[in-house]
Amino acid sequence: MLPMVRLNEIRIGEVAVDLPPATDAGLIFIGTICTPWTDRLACPRQGRLDGPVCRLEIAEPFVAALAGLEQYAEVEVLYWLDRSRRDLVLQSPQRDGTVRGAFSLRSPVRPNPIGTARTRLVDIVGATVRVQGLDCLDGTPLIDLKPDRSTFTPLAPPQPGDFETGPA
Amino acid sequence: MLPMVRLNEIRIGEVAVDLPPATDAGLIFIGTICTPWTDRLACPRQGRLDGPVCRLEIAEPFVAALAGLEQYAEVEVLYWLDRSRRDLVLQSPQRDGTVRGAFSLRSPVRPNPIGTARTRLVDIVGATVRVQGLDCLDGTPLIDLKPDRSTFTPLAPPQPGDFETGPA
Repeated sequence: MLPMVRLNEIRIGEVAVDLPPATDAGLIFIGTICTPWTDRLACPRQGRLDGPVCRLEIAEPFVAALAGLEQYAEVEVLYWLDRSRRDLVLQSPQRDGTVRGAFSLRSPVRPNPIGTARTRLVDIVGATVRVQGLDCLDGTPLIDLKPDRSTFTPLAPPQPGDFETGPA
Repeated sequence: MLPMVRLNEIRIGEVAVDLPPATDAGLIFIGTICTPWTDRLACPRQGRLDGPVCRLEIAEPFVAALAGLEQYAEVEVLYWLDRSRRDLVLQSPQRDGTVRGAFSLRSPVRPNPIGTARTRLVDIVGATVRVQGLDCLDGTPLIDLKPDRSTFTPLAPPQPGDFETGPA
């Protein structure tokens, strides 16, 4: 099978649905991600914290929103997988006819193609944030950065919900 | 200070920017989240894995995409914080005049108000997924579910990027 076929085909057993219009909410791209990968067939399936250093180039007027991020060792990065189809609810990642739901995979093909990565912060210089741990194509639009929850404690005072627990 | 003031005010030191139109990409709400919290002043600042059981009600045509999710103990949930302002690049979580960038906080106030939570899966029955670990208001729109990366191994064959590392 030709590699090209992997990019947009429907494999045996996969199911596409008619999607409603993507207008429930609108995103603003806050910047662009620069990675070593220009080919979908070379991208990692999953980022690694010791992976290549990648750059997040933040656009105005959002550069000011980086203030304070430098103090965290790990950053959660959200990005828009702009080359992924969105309509495959059942997918065959092993291409063998067995299928799994899109929500049980971390595939880029999903109704809202948002990737999330836990990354290691290298440094921040001006509008450029350097991290390790990404898995996306060069040029991928950036949609959010947050301190990873593993190293973040809320600064605002607690609210009642912080103390609520459920069944053991 | 009245609690009401907390919902939309700009505090001392905070900076709002003029945002570009939110049209770079469009989202489809895939369902709705049911939580015990109907008041923003009662929501947890951060979810906890032993928190109240919450329900994710998946809408058609996306119910089929749940197939296989039941085998994971932890699920990453993405949701749209539809009542949050998006324009505050500098924020004062402690309301004391000291400010931090939106990207250095896990505040719901951010250019793209997407919340991410690591949750514990309770069960899946039909179109209803029950989890613990959320922190959002009742009625929050749902945008994605993925197996949490802590318990997920890609099913598709590795690609060259999976083996690339960067500077130690």
